[in-house]
Amino acid sequence: MTKFVYLFREADGKDKAKFGGKGANLAEMTKLGMPVPPGFTITTEACTAYYKDGKKINSEINEEIFKTLAILEKETDKKFGSIENPFLVSVRSGARASMPGMMDTILNLGLNDISVEGLARLTDNPRFAYDCYRRFIQMYSDVVIGIGKNFFEKIIDDLKLSRGVKLDTDLKTEDLKELVSRFKAFYKKSQGQEFPQDPKVQLVGAVEAVFRSWDNPRANVYRRMNNIPSDWGTAVNVQSMVFGNMGDTSGTGVAFTRNPSTGEKKLYGEYLMNAQGEDVVAGIRTPSTIDHLKVTNAEVYNQFVEIANKLEKYFHDMQDMEFTIERGKLYMLQTRNGKRTAQAAVRVAVELVEEGLCSQKEALLKIEPKQLDDLLHPTFSASELKKWSPIASGLPASPGAASGKIAFSAEEAKIRTQAGEKVVLVRLETSPEDIEGMHCSEGILTARGGLTSHAAVVARGMGTCCVSGCGELIINEEEKTLTVNGKKYGPDDVISIDGSTGNIYAGTIPTVNAEISGHFRTIMDWANATRTLKVRANADNPKDAKTAYEFGAQGIGLCRTEHMFFEETRIKSVREMIIADTEEARRKALAKLLPMQREDFIGIYKEMKGNPVTIRFLDPPLHEFLPHKDTEMVELAKDLGVSFEKVKETVESLKESNPMLGHRGCRLAVTFPEIAEMQTRAVIEAAIAVNKEGGNVKAEIMIPLVGEVKELAFVKGVVVETAEKVMKEAGTKVEYSVGTMIEIPRAAITADKIATEADFFSFGTNDLTQMTFGFSRDDAGKFLPFYYGKRIFESDPFQRLDVNGVGELVKLASEKGRATNPKIKLGICGEHGGDPYTIEFCHSIGLNYVSCSPFRVPIAILAAAQAAINSSK
Amino acid sequence: MTKFVYLFREADGKDKAKFGGKGANLAEMTKLGMPVPPGFTITTEACTAYYKDGKKINSEINEEIFKTLAILEKETDKKFGSIENPFLVSVRSGARASMPGMMDTILNLGLNDISVEGLARLTDNPRFAYDCYRRFIQMYSDVVIGIGKNFFEKIIDDLKLSRGVKLDTDLKTEDLKELVSRFKAFYKKSQGQEFPQDPKVQLVGAVEAVFRSWDNPRANVYRRMNNIPSDWGTAVNVQSMVFGNMGDTSGTGVAFTRNPSTGEKKLYGEYLMNAQGEDVVAGIRTPSTIDHLKVTNAEVYNQFVEIANKLEKYFHDMQDMEFTIERGKLYMLQTRNGKRTAQAAVRVAVELVEEGLCSQKEALLKIEPKQLDDLLHPTFSASELKKWSPIASGLPASPGAASGKIAFSAEEAKIRTQAGEKVVLVRLETSPEDIEGMHCSEGILTARGGLTSHAAVVARGMGTCCVSGCGELIINEEEKTLTVNGKKYGPDDVISIDGSTGNIYAGTIPTVNAEISGHFRTIMDWANATRTLKVRANADNPKDAKTAYEFGAQGIGLCRTEHMFFEETRIKSVREMIIADTEEARRKALAKLLPMQREDFIGIYKEMKGNPVTIRFLDPPLHEFLPHKDTEMVELAKDLGVSFEKVKETVESLKESNPMLGHRGCRLAVTFPEIAEMQTRAVIEAAIAVNKEGGNVKAEIMIPLVGEVKELAFVKGVVVETAEKVMKEAGTKVEYSVGTMIEIPRAAITADKIATEADFFSFGTNDLTQMTFGFSRDDAGKFLPFYYGKRIFESDPFQRLDVNGVGELVKLASEKGRATNPKIKLGICGEHGGDPYTIEFCHSIGLNYVSCSPFRVPIAILAAAQAAINSSK
Repeated sequence: MTKFVYLFREADGKDKAKFGGKGANLAEMTKLGMPVPPGFTITTEACTAYYKDGKKINSEINEEIFKTLAILEKETDKKFGSIENPFLVSVRSGARASMPGMMDTILNLGLNDISVEGLARLTDNPRFAYDCYRRFIQMYSDVVIGIGKNFFEKIIDDLKLSRGVKLDTDLKTEDLKELVSRFKAFYKKSQGQEFPQDPKVQLVGAVEAVFRSWDNPRANVYRRMNNIPSDWGTAVNVQSMVFGNMGDTSGTGVAFTRNPSTGEKKLYGEYLMNAQGEDVVAGIRTPSTIDHLKVTNAEVYNQFVEIANKLEKYFHDMQDMEFTIERGKLYMLQTRNGKRTAQAAVRVAVELVEEGLCSQKEALLKIEPKQLDDLLHPTFSASELKKWSPIASGLPASPGAASGKIAFSAEEAKIRTQAGEKVVLVRLETSPEDIEGMHCSEGILTARGGLTSHAAVVARGMGTCCVSGCGELIINEEEKTLTVNGKKYGPDDVISIDGSTGNIYAGTIPTVNAEISGHFRTIMDWANATRTLKVRANADNPKDAKTAYEFGAQGIGLCRTEHMFFEETRIKSVREMIIADTEEARRKALAKLLPMQREDFIGIYKEMKGNPVTIRFLDPPLHEFLPHKDTEMVELAKDLGVSFEKVKETVESLKESNPMLGHRGCRLAVTFPEIAEMQTRAVIEAAIAVNKEGGNVKAEIMIPLVGEVKELAFVKGVVVETAEKVMKEAGTKVEYSVGTMIEIPRAAITADKIATEADFFSFGTNDLTQMTFGFSRDDAGKFLPFYYGKRIFESDPFQRLDVNGVGELVKLASEKGRATNPKIKLGICGEHGGDPYTIEFCHSIGLNYVSCSPFRVPIAILAAAQAAINSSK
Repeated sequence: MTKFVYLFREADGKDKAKFGGKGANLAEMTKLGMPVPPGFTITTEACTAYYKDGKKINSEINEEIFKTLAILEKETDKKFGSIENPFLVSVRSGARASMPGMMDTILNLGLNDISVEGLARLTDNPRFAYDCYRRFIQMYSDVVIGIGKNFFEKIIDDLKLSRGVKLDTDLKTEDLKELVSRFKAFYKKSQGQEFPQDPKVQLVGAVEAVFRSWDNPRANVYRRMNNIPSDWGTAVNVQSMVFGNMGDTSGTGVAFTRNPSTGEKKLYGEYLMNAQGEDVVAGIRTPSTIDHLKVTNAEVYNQFVEIANKLEKYFHDMQDMEFTIERGKLYMLQTRNGKRTAQAAVRVAVELVEEGLCSQKEALLKIEPKQLDDLLHPTFSASELKKWSPIASGLPASPGAASGKIAFSAEEAKIRTQAGEKVVLVRLETSPEDIEGMHCSEGILTARGGLTSHAAVVARGMGTCCVSGCGELIINEEEKTLTVNGKKYGPDDVISIDGSTGNIYAGTIPTVNAEISGHFRTIMDWANATRTLKVRANADNPKDAKTAYEFGAQGIGLCRTEHMFFEETRIKSVREMIIADTEEARRKALAKLLPMQREDFIGIYKEMKGNPVTIRFLDPPLHEFLPHKDTEMVELAKDLGVSFEKVKETVESLKESNPMLGHRGCRLAVTFPEIAEMQTRAVIEAAIAVNKEGGNVKAEIMIPLVGEVKELAFVKGVVVETAEKVMKEAGTKVEYSVGTMIEIPRAAITADKIATEADFFSFGTNDLTQMTFGFSRDDAGKFLPFYYGKRIFESDPFQRLDVNGVGELVKLASEKGRATNPKIKLGICGEHGGDPYTIEFCHSIGLNYVSCSPFRVPIAILAAAQAAINSSK
């Protein structure tokens, strides 16, 4: 029989899949003899069972919970619902991966009309006891029953009004008793039954609520964003309550063993005296720094420092801990590997190695590759910044620099960014409901909350710039105004925030690009020494090629030539070519494009300094280059000296019912080989020119959208013939190869045949995903939300390679390609090329390289290193 | 070293791949001791080499040709270019599969200024010799050099004018000599060199021309239509000339051992005295029947009959023979299995078995399955026909009945049928250039030519109704008029032709459908006893279901429910559902559709009499059901009692950039499960109703466009829940299963997972082809012609399954599906389901059934039988 409930001391602290991160670490701390309030963990398997049983906790598990509870009651000599020594617990979620703030928690469970008296006696503090009780009713009603908090807030406000007081703290014990009775009356009125007095009923309700919260909308969004499978489920931790709000010798706090923002090796944290945990995280009161505790309670401080050091050594990583001090006694409530900024992540990783706490490879695994993105974000130009004075200053909660118009709610931020605006989200404080709006904002600014407030934690996780706790701000969310020092700013005003200094500016400040140096450089060096997968970049112009090269790209994996065609000076010749009726007229227009295209390639070759450059020939359907409004067509007709009807007719004739499945890719080269000829000439002539100046160009010509080997053979014929002709004309040779993009299912299926004509395959996973799934990215928006809602899909297949379907095709094509052409070079150049999960897959199937956008190159380098490390384990 | 040239007596008559059909059979006849003029065959491998060597005959092959020629010269005691005994040859193509009239032939080769004199002396007929010479110059210039025949015709016309004569036959020997000299002068002027006098040069030129003609446009079109691979190549047969035009004791003819139109066992053919072969085939003079030969030359006739009988027994099949009589002596120039009408094909096959000439299985293999289509064609209703009098009568050249407006050229026929008209092509005579226009016409009517004329042969091959040689017609192709008995008909007049009687009518005559009886029934019975693959039909209504059942379908493989939605009485409710904003409003509209949909299913179930019926749930994107013009939207808004803006908004919101890859198929059921609920209810309620009346319904619910198993699981959940509910309501059970269409590449790739939720897979090869190739059928028209032109594709992948790509996916999915669900039923329901080549593939990978349009069921039955026979060989 499966065991579903484990005391902390029984649980296997290494098994996060079963006990969740929180439960596993509580077990570890318990075994390390640390002061952990006793409790037990209900496993993630129980959560899975809950869903399998139609959202019910079955009797087996129920029985186990109460059997384990009885052991705890006995050991603590406390009892559920007792007036003598009431047993109170917290009930918290704890998934395998940390999902901060996404799921539900209930504190003070076990209070009822009797045990509240016990608590009052025990603490000799009836006001405290009744305050706990009314909070519990409120929390339980919200989380377990789903009665909104605002109903209870209204009751509190009414009472305060009738008592003529303003603050909650001004309410007396009798007032709180009155509140409890009004709360219970409201509960009964709304639910048709009494507020549950039986703590066992409360407990089952709370456990169910936590299980249920695994499936709430914000948890689902978070999981999708972080690629957490929905079938993992959450564990539930039931733990004896300790109280940080038992008076002035009690308190609660959170701390990191190192600075999560900079990585500096120094205990870093905050606490609030006379408060419960939620008060710190919610950021309503501004807390004291952990250093201050040394002054007020050196003994506890020292004990905490010792524990912190011990935990860091034990887990070989920076720890993020929650603690409570109850009447002067320290309790550890949680420890976990701390979330950190990218800057901190690289510093901590390097220093852990320097301190001998872990190996280079272990250190590389500690950094979330996607996070490096933050280090590549622009910062405000130092020279520009000198010219500006901040209008206010808050806490530097998440580094980076952001400018944007002010959005006063998450919803507004979402709508305005969808409409193409850049916004900074400005809020009193943020809450878990805001997550989507936070995600799409350039930056986040809050008036309340510390460095560990919701806004700060979430922003760091997202790599979004954030300034928190800026008390100078007067925010009126309803009127949509932000007032600082008497000056009002509205939704149309731009502000800039600096997440590294906490400064806030009115207006747009220019930014400068990042570079790789210091700890980041060290990490990149280690990663480069470790990985076997090559990393290239997708770049269409010399500027992007330069960035890519500086970030460590070992070549260009995808240079899209059509992007060059859209430039204003060129589009006319492109259009002239499309409107042309004869091959001769087309050749005339192409001749005008040739020198420009050649110059593009010269620039890119030079930046890549002898690394291979894969140039993809013209891909999009020709109608994309033509205007679609009559007025523009009139203009174009005049420009080209042809009739409007002629232009209109061409535009009409090029319309397609399914452009994605139309006349594009190599189909263009089959119908108009002269285009491929011109492009080949540009590629080869540019290579000759650069080689003349001492270059060593490796040009790779990539034929797109091939589905049949004879297609490739035909276009390759044109390419080779032209290339040989150009080299003969110049009396010199250059190194070039011809390959194809594998982006059509049939190409993957017949890869053995196609490989006989190809020097390389580059998997174009964007189109391959669309065609393999049979839906277009543009149209899928209408039904994908339903697919996520019904858990048919768990992640966006355009972000993360669908390993079971599209990945299977990639694997098949790789095997088939290598079978007939063992020397074939294999790479991936879709947007997936920068996704760490996809990179791990590419490594596992033995591709030669991945290619991604220049700013993702360092991410890909680290991901490739991690893949190499993980696969050699 | 490969041998490329074989004397007829050396060649292997069984190896058609190497020697071509004509060459192989010449070899067989030679070995059988029949009077075949001596000659040799240049193999198809030489043709392949010719193309490989850049369209050049290499020196090895050249040498071999002349070495073999020398042997022939010695054996015949004739010499190339000799004045004493000139050696003249014909040079003819001969591919593995018969491609009548598609490639080139040159006669009288070897004539020059000297040998023409030799021929004159030898035949004692200078006029004949010079006529041969001028014909040869004309033919050589046309076929080898590419100088159009019309230039030479002009020279002849000029000469006739100056001589004051009207007919070619009125030209005297001196005139012909003059013509030869004018032809040669024109040749020199146009080519800058003399007409080649060296017969060896002539021969090489002619052989190259035949090789080249393998790749001419009409041969390519023919191959594509008949699925003949372009890499087979053609052989060349070089044969001593015999002359059917040496006077009144000479002649030439063609004959069949049985009647190719009816299959009757009786020698059937035609000949012309004093003519060359081309004269018979071209249909310029109307020939005598073969029976007439008995009267004029009983000895030759008897010899020919004996040879014909011997050949039929030797080849176990009806023979189509060409012969020449030179001065009373019979020569056999060709024999091959004769092309025949479908009616003849089934009769011949059955009678060959009855005569003990072959087994049932061999007989089944003699019928081209696609040809059966002709037997399923409608004929004129006998009762209607009584009311009509023919306006004229010609030869019954190809059976069937056709009505249509008159098209006076192949080009016109093409254009008008593309515009949606039905036309009958009316021509003096047809030529190979007309092939595409003949293909798209309802029927073909010619004024000249016999039953073996070009029009007759090609029409029979195509299964198109044809009346030929109707001399009463006065056709003016330029003025586009047809005059019969003084009455004029133009392009807007409809005529009807009866290919079985040769009658021509003015106006449209109603037709009746075919039924399976007689020899056809026998063939179907043999096929049914032989095949293992089941055959179902695609039918969306009771009428089609009835036809399918009568033709032998063993179930419905695809019933498309959306077709029912388009009916005028229903479309309003469908639109109401689409415009609805809420689930409730949608359910209201669906409730109106339920009884209609149920009635459809009841009708279909009844017709299928207990055979399985696969019902595909709603598939197309919803915008297909909405109007797209503003005026129609105004109408609809009024109808539904909503605002125009509301309708317009819905129409706009449903627009998609790639509808094929959009919100359709099971994606509709995921977003609007209530549609699937309604359809399930209709399926099950209909089954309950039919079973109540003693039916035994096997309903198969098919979920379209599945790409991921969870999609299917979700929709299946809705289906099963609804079905169980409906059955519980009715207090009865019905047999139903749930499966999916495999039409998305990802479904094929993940078929092992999908099979765990599916009772059956039906391969939707239309969409699967589009998605696997990455092009849409609607858009591919722009580039596919180039693909055919460049031989990248050899057949239309929408007609014939692409076995290497799409077929590979089908095979993979079948294997994966069976691996996880060994009981899974596998079928195909795309349009490919009726293609014999595809059916053979389906048999080979072990599918359970194919499903095709009702009229293709007999074809599929025969093809399935052939597949079973071939695979057991």
